[in-house]
Amino acid sequence: MKKGELTRSAIVSSALELAGLEGLEGITLGKLAERMAMSKSGVFAHFGSREELQIAVLKAHERRFAEDVLLPALSRPRGLPRVRAIVERWIDHTGAAAGGGCLWIAGASELDDRPGPVRDVLVGMVRGWQRELMRAIAQAVEAGELRADLPPEDLLAGLFGVVLVLHHDRRLLRSPDALARARRVADRLLAEAAAAAPSARPRPAPRRPRESPAR
Amino acid sequence: MKKGELTRSAIVSSALELAGLEGLEGITLGKLAERMAMSKSGVFAHFGSREELQIAVLKAHERRFAEDVLLPALSRPRGLPRVRAIVERWIDHTGAAAGGGCLWIAGASELDDRPGPVRDVLVGMVRGWQRELMRAIAQAVEAGELRADLPPEDLLAGLFGVVLVLHHDRRLLRSPDALARARRVADRLLAEAAAAAPSARPRPAPRRPRESPAR
Repeated sequence: MKKGELTRSAIVSSALELAGLEGLEGITLGKLAERMAMSKSGVFAHFGSREELQIAVLKAHERRFAEDVLLPALSRPRGLPRVRAIVERWIDHTGAAAGGGCLWIAGASELDDRPGPVRDVLVGMVRGWQRELMRAIAQAVEAGELRADLPPEDLLAGLFGVVLVLHHDRRLLRSPDALARARRVADRLLAEAAAAAPSARPRPAPRRPRESPAR
Repeated sequence: MKKGELTRSAIVSSALELAGLEGLEGITLGKLAERMAMSKSGVFAHFGSREELQIAVLKAHERRFAEDVLLPALSRPRGLPRVRAIVERWIDHTGAAAGGGCLWIAGASELDDRPGPVRDVLVGMVRGWQRELMRAIAQAVEAGELRADLPPEDLLAGLFGVVLVLHHDRRLLRSPDALARARRVADRLLAEAAAAAPSARPRPAPRRPRESPAR
């Protein structure tokens, strides 16, 4: 990596931390320069605009999210074990983010009424994540491990709701039991999506041996 | 109402509209004065501080929310009919808010990391609303219409998740089917919370005739 790339990467890391504390709109040239012990113009030499910097921060968050949540879960077998691993990691990721919460969730509120390239990038990322989860759900339906009569987008909405409530209850209400509750509600949603499968068919379909969740 | 109170009330209405568009932090003296065709000092003569104005806006939203959601539902019989009425109205309220969304949800993101009196007021309102919903759920459990083995706070979290996802999908993703999906997911949560009640007891308890939802 060249020196310019290293500096750029360090600025993005610092901006990502700052965004965790103060939101995407909290990323200002002045604050970043102070954190980096650089001049304002030195910081902005690396980015054509504040929007470009915000987009770089969203991309850095997406990489971290993929490393934390999606990639490890993809090593689990297709079907319900993979769906469970994704959901568990997603909940842990959202609950663990010390104070910062999830930048996509916080960013949704900041950007939902601000048309522009940053909002477009965020929408694309959220949709991309939903597609990944929908694919994992569809594979579990195909494998006969999740009910075929339940619209997959409804299960996705239920799971997404668990994560949004966790984010809200941790950040606003500071509920100490938010994480445990999120895990219970998600488990119940998955159990209900799975449990009725045999009765939805004339006879229980043969099942692959059920693996325990990733963690 | 005296003239001063009328003016104050008109300022709060205008600020509530503004907050629906730009958030609680979007309420500025300058913008309000412009909307009211008043001087800045004229607007602020009615409020001791910007925080006091923000709190007045939150209270106005709470009144409107109670009128839209809670009070009409309280006219339904205790138990599942009342829970259903609350949930239906809550979803309609969140889905209908033309563009503005729910000020409590938007405000949660704005205020969750800003300690102070405005945040405290919002937390108190959200907790108050949760208590109302918990009370309605507890009555339905007592009436034997909802499962006693399901923690009421888990059902509450599930329903709250439906509303948060609706808000997110309408505002950020502009999903045309967000409202229909929210209704389906909420119906399923309530059906699952209700359906297992008979099997949780040795014999089905006698049930009151099931009333159709309020709307």
